[in-house]
Amino acid sequence: MALIGILGGMGPLATVDFMEQIIRLTGAARDQEHLPMLVANLPHTPDRSAAIIDGGADPLPALLEGIDLLNRNGVGVIAVPCNSAHHWYAQMRAHSAAPLLHIGEVCAAAIAPQVTRAAVLATRGALSAGFYQAALVARGIEPVLPDREPQECVSACIAAVKADRPGAAATHLSDVLDALSAQRIDAAVLGCTELPIAARELARPAFALVDSTLELARETVRYALARGWNRPV
Amino acid sequence: MALIGILGGMGPLATVDFMEQIIRLTGAARDQEHLPMLVANLPHTPDRSAAIIDGGADPLPALLEGIDLLNRNGVGVIAVPCNSAHHWYAQMRAHSAAPLLHIGEVCAAAIAPQVTRAAVLATRGALSAGFYQAALVARGIEPVLPDREPQECVSACIAAVKADRPGAAATHLSDVLDALSAQRIDAAVLGCTELPIAARELARPAFALVDSTLELARETVRYALARGWNRPV
Repeated sequence: MALIGILGGMGPLATVDFMEQIIRLTGAARDQEHLPMLVANLPHTPDRSAAIIDGGADPLPALLEGIDLLNRNGVGVIAVPCNSAHHWYAQMRAHSAAPLLHIGEVCAAAIAPQVTRAAVLATRGALSAGFYQAALVARGIEPVLPDREPQECVSACIAAVKADRPGAAATHLSDVLDALSAQRIDAAVLGCTELPIAARELARPAFALVDSTLELARETVRYALARGWNRPV
Repeated sequence: MALIGILGGMGPLATVDFMEQIIRLTGAARDQEHLPMLVANLPHTPDRSAAIIDGGADPLPALLEGIDLLNRNGVGVIAVPCNSAHHWYAQMRAHSAAPLLHIGEVCAAAIAPQVTRAAVLATRGALSAGFYQAALVARGIEPVLPDREPQECVSACIAAVKADRPGAAATHLSDVLDALSAQRIDAAVLGCTELPIAARELARPAFALVDSTLELARETVRYALARGWNRPV
């Protein structure tokens, strides 16, 4: 029996949200039927988006330290509930004995087949990295990026969740969704793990929201249950 | 800079609740000001209460494995967000290089000085272990234990939280608090980390509720902030 490895803290509330989704999706009736996890919650990892777009401090050494820690302690798979960190997915995967799930691939694969145009809400860094756009295009979905002003609201929403200001976060996200409703989209990908936390405060918009945290949790639970990690040896 | 070590999974939702309290109490404005944590979420640890009262499987080997894992990876302090596990506090502490906080001591110390009679809501195992009663008596507070029927509601509430049935959990806890209101108590200690999750759904009773998860989180954050673990090196 292996542990689920979680490289988290980016941000911490998103890590807690991810763990809670795993727990709820496991559908256990008592402690001993739940999935074991080892969580490296490392919030000091330098800002991923700033590193990609503004030449900020490189987060890769901290990411690889976290990958090492999890591997040293017998995890059987690793999930990283931070979309922007997936700019370094190839380097993390090459460094890890345990398989590494890809939040963007998992999330794009979860989009309903009838969707043809989907907005991507993410950090400027993740959008600049481009993995969501590539994953959507590979599935025949046209990615739609927010204009400059709604993108600033996306960034403000993410910062507000990280600072535990849920009211401000919800207002910013509501502005983004209003701006997107003028576009001809079928879905919006919440491609930053802070956004689903803000979305929970809001009424559902006319288009579908695809929650990257939830989709990564679904894939993680599927992976672990298929291998019987919920059953004590 | 050290990590906060959390030996959790007993139960998993309580561990997530504990982490969320730590994050909110840290009062950080961005990821990099948060406290790093290493969380061993080990739900397969045998049932603590059953081991104390019914001769169930011994959880101590699993507890010590968790303590070992955290120590091997550089944690500077360990918190265990499970009250019943504190029946084995002395053995865990003797086994750990990092200091181990005691949820019952921390929680009893947080009770307002004017309280003279306090109910203790906990598993039958934790009550049988007796550390809450001892901690209260040491502070001049008379411990009041629920009668047989409300104690069954406490146990049912805990089981319902572990099975993610929040409605049932709230109903059971409400029945306990109603029964207690006939007693002459100033406070009730939520001495099981599942109980605060159920209490959040309810209106406040006439007496104070002392949340063991929150008090352990407060002490953990105090400990870590005093040592500057929120500041990257």
